[in-house]
Amino acid sequence: MTTSPASGPASGRDPIAEARRQWTAHGWEQAAPGMAAVTSIMRAQQLLLTQIDALLRPFGLTFARFELLRLLSFASEQRMTMRRAGQRLQVHPTSLTSLAARLADDALVERVANPDDGRSAILVLTSAGAALVDEATEVLNREVFEAIGLSSDDVAVLVEVLGRFRAGRGDFAP
Amino acid sequence: MTTSPASGPASGRDPIAEARRQWTAHGWEQAAPGMAAVTSIMRAQQLLLTQIDALLRPFGLTFARFELLRLLSFASEQRMTMRRAGQRLQVHPTSLTSLAARLADDALVERVANPDDGRSAILVLTSAGAALVDEATEVLNREVFEAIGLSSDDVAVLVEVLGRFRAGRGDFAP
Repeated sequence: MTTSPASGPASGRDPIAEARRQWTAHGWEQAAPGMAAVTSIMRAQQLLLTQIDALLRPFGLTFARFELLRLLSFASEQRMTMRRAGQRLQVHPTSLTSLAARLADDALVERVANPDDGRSAILVLTSAGAALVDEATEVLNREVFEAIGLSSDDVAVLVEVLGRFRAGRGDFAP
Repeated sequence: MTTSPASGPASGRDPIAEARRQWTAHGWEQAAPGMAAVTSIMRAQQLLLTQIDALLRPFGLTFARFELLRLLSFASEQRMTMRRAGQRLQVHPTSLTSLAARLADDALVERVANPDDGRSAILVLTSAGAALVDEATEVLNREVFEAIGLSSDDVAVLVEVLGRFRAGRGDFAP
């Protein structure tokens, strides 16, 4: 990627390395590596979300809406209960309701009653939704996922370490 | 950390590993590792931000407001131009203006005119701001940064790999 980050031109120094020096200088040596790790995750997420949301804007999607469409496209008969979609995407029921409402307004999903559970609707991908998410996936694959800018070893170790981090916080059972 | 993530109880399977299998099954092998890395960063950030914002809520702070106070507390005479603070924190000028306004409302910072540049105010940490950010730092150090739940090798490699990722996107000059 050759474009500047959204937050302006890069300065020469790494602000996270600088914060780490400050942390150590203030006697917080024990916390300094963790502070650097947390801040690095926050900053990487910000860079990615800025890029991804810009790529998805022409499709009328955000990353969260994309993830829901993508999940439905993988599901058997391209449908899933709201409950299960929320578990899989790890989003709050209220957030999922608002995501689904937005996608339904755009005719990308339909909400149908769940014959087995009156409290949880079923989301069904429409053919327009299926076509749109395939186009959006092609763009994200090409511009982001295949162009991550790290060696395959770095990518592997990143997924592995973040997997341990997520498992340690109860994100899934390892 | 023993609390459940905000998004509900962990299911047994890792949804990111599952998405990766789907990506490969759909013929996107080249993009699958990058997709897993990007989604892992997004999810780790979400877990961290949920925890940190909950810890900072009693202080009337968000992580973004905390970072600005912390930066000022490290600065010479605990003051810095808005311009320089924005560069260091890597936030948009408009976001910084709104962060500073909120902190000024709470009497944690003061905005004073910059004698060298009429277009860029100077932010000065107040003594109330200095005391509050020290208390908040103590909590984040203890509950988050020293309790990250990864080995020191994992933390080091995470910072290193994310540093290469950030540098590759122009976040700083390596």
